[in-house]
Amino acid sequence: MSTTMPDTGNTPSKDTNTTSAPKANKGGLEGVVAATTAISKVDGTAGQLVYRGYDIHSLARSTTFEEVAHLLWFGHLPNEKELADLHAKFVAARGIPDMVMQTIHALPKETDPMDALRTAVSAWGAISVSGKPSIEQAIAVTANFPLFLAAFNRLRHGEEPLASQPELGHAANYLYLLTGQVPSEEHVRGLNSYLVLLADHGMNASTFTARIVASTESDIVSALVAAIGALKGPLHGGAPSKVQDMLREIGTADNAEPWLRNSITNGTKLMGFGHRVYKTTDPRAEELREMSRVADPEGFAFSGKVEELAISLLDELKPGRRLYTNVEYYSAALMASVGLRGDLFTPTFAISRCAGWTAHILEQVSNNRLIRPEAEYTGPMNLQFTPLAERK
Amino acid sequence: MSTTMPDTGNTPSKDTNTTSAPKANKGGLEGVVAATTAISKVDGTAGQLVYRGYDIHSLARSTTFEEVAHLLWFGHLPNEKELADLHAKFVAARGIPDMVMQTIHALPKETDPMDALRTAVSAWGAISVSGKPSIEQAIAVTANFPLFLAAFNRLRHGEEPLASQPELGHAANYLYLLTGQVPSEEHVRGLNSYLVLLADHGMNASTFTARIVASTESDIVSALVAAIGALKGPLHGGAPSKVQDMLREIGTADNAEPWLRNSITNGTKLMGFGHRVYKTTDPRAEELREMSRVADPEGFAFSGKVEELAISLLDELKPGRRLYTNVEYYSAALMASVGLRGDLFTPTFAISRCAGWTAHILEQVSNNRLIRPEAEYTGPMNLQFTPLAERK
Repeated sequence: MSTTMPDTGNTPSKDTNTTSAPKANKGGLEGVVAATTAISKVDGTAGQLVYRGYDIHSLARSTTFEEVAHLLWFGHLPNEKELADLHAKFVAARGIPDMVMQTIHALPKETDPMDALRTAVSAWGAISVSGKPSIEQAIAVTANFPLFLAAFNRLRHGEEPLASQPELGHAANYLYLLTGQVPSEEHVRGLNSYLVLLADHGMNASTFTARIVASTESDIVSALVAAIGALKGPLHGGAPSKVQDMLREIGTADNAEPWLRNSITNGTKLMGFGHRVYKTTDPRAEELREMSRVADPEGFAFSGKVEELAISLLDELKPGRRLYTNVEYYSAALMASVGLRGDLFTPTFAISRCAGWTAHILEQVSNNRLIRPEAEYTGPMNLQFTPLAERK
Repeated sequence: MSTTMPDTGNTPSKDTNTTSAPKANKGGLEGVVAATTAISKVDGTAGQLVYRGYDIHSLARSTTFEEVAHLLWFGHLPNEKELADLHAKFVAARGIPDMVMQTIHALPKETDPMDALRTAVSAWGAISVSGKPSIEQAIAVTANFPLFLAAFNRLRHGEEPLASQPELGHAANYLYLLTGQVPSEEHVRGLNSYLVLLADHGMNASTFTARIVASTESDIVSALVAAIGALKGPLHGGAPSKVQDMLREIGTADNAEPWLRNSITNGTKLMGFGHRVYKTTDPRAEELREMSRVADPEGFAFSGKVEELAISLLDELKPGRRLYTNVEYYSAALMASVGLRGDLFTPTFAISRCAGWTAHILEQVSNNRLIRPEAEYTGPMNLQFTPLAERK
């Protein structure tokens, strides 16, 4: 396995307890169309990502997270009045109920922030949500994701959680809640672009999970808690901080070529390359690369060099695999540049993706059918039951 | 819709914001093989359910929940020593950490018990689980599901949670923790049969959800929390208490025929009939029916009559749909007969299914591939981006 998103062929099942020869694994539903959606389109061959008709490049450069959340939820970009209304709804929804704060308080410092977020959102849902998923619920829960995380982050550092600032937008308020400082415009712009870029991405594993839960007619928070759990996995959203670890291990530009060649040859994962759907550069990585180039020319001189070498070596050593830069490669640099520490990278991804998850949940329930596939049974059949006392 | 598990044909998408004609919904992956498994087989045409080679009928009549959990996890029925070892592991794992108890305490009385379970399990996972899913984790979390629920149930009634009784098995200890009374053998036998019957069921929505989360290399608790959220939905596990509501509404045997005919004709759901996979009687319903017949002849005289009439009227009024009794129809009667109130039915289903969920999570990670399908995009394309100030 040489990529962040493993891309192995079908391997036979390892179950030994079978009567017939094990059948090939069905390949993780690769290429199977599991649903229709009007929310986003991922074209893996063209390297294109579209939210409701708009190319991701124009959105990343010119919109805020709130504009994109409006686009995903309501189907069109807001005008100034609609945007002001949405901001007012976010502001009104911001606030951690006492019971949820007690739950966050009770978590030990060492808790994985994704586990903290999952637990806080579950507790919030237990007291705040009932009935069919609604856009009001989507707004309220999205507004509160940063509050839960920032409260946990402050408490684990021995600091009191802060109150939100009504004049601040989603990205700025999150940074304020973490630090107690009104953030610089540059940081707000950088984080906004990140939140826009990651807000939706077709039928990825966490979104698919959320849609399955919603398809049982369960509630919006049950679906979101499920999605958070899926995003946590390193094969989905759980790995961006590992790109930093890799770059740190490579250390110098001179060491890049031998290090990368050695890793690829030995089957060690290269973090930040390869994707289930993209067979060319991820368009989100292109945006993040450009932001990194402008914001941190020195760091970029190194990470850009490593990227170039990695792609060329992957092409040489894994011909035909088409492994290119994925979104994680420059996500880490972006998030570090706005002051986030490594274990907040994945939960910050969740803050962004919450907009897409909730849009998909609402789309699922608007024209629902229970998502319930089948499985191919490969185990034994017709075993004779033996009572407990007679079993060897 | 006239069944608990809706069975509508494909309907066109309602999205209006599309450039091309909306495509048909893909039908909830009906009949699509999403994975191979050696854990259980559901044959919907024959009405057969098999756990690792053993027919469900023999298991339901002769095994305890712990024997079946051993079968699902380890692939074979335990002998007496293996069963004693497993019991010892359950006993050693039982206990609610203070932090989780604080979280349960903080939940208001009115909390849906499924939300309470989801939140307690999430909190427990935050402090108890790290690394790759393991059988030890599976045992520990399964051992504690009844503790979380019983603690919440006692607290909401103003009673203190109780300590587990080491000599009691899983079913008996759960009933003890709810009531403070060592339960009758009859109740323990009934609940054990229920827990055995519901412990696994192929690639149902919650199990599929758990496998997707596990396929991202996330942790076992993230996968279970997701599964709990899916089970909560009335199209999956959330509806058994509604069977009781329906029987109460029908009221008398004389009212059954006109009530059922009227409901089916008007498209009202009949609770407890129809299933995505079974096109004949669910074998679990057969076992529960027989238990109900023996345990409560008077109640059965009524519910059996309603069942018979419903099947005959569904056949007459929905010809070709093959709608038969599903597991929910007699689940409600069984759970009520052992003293559980209606809103504990679905969480008790979760106590049982936790064995299957964890077995599937372990199977998924033993030969993993990220489950990540695709979607067909039906929205607009190539929209021209307009800056905020110029939007109408």
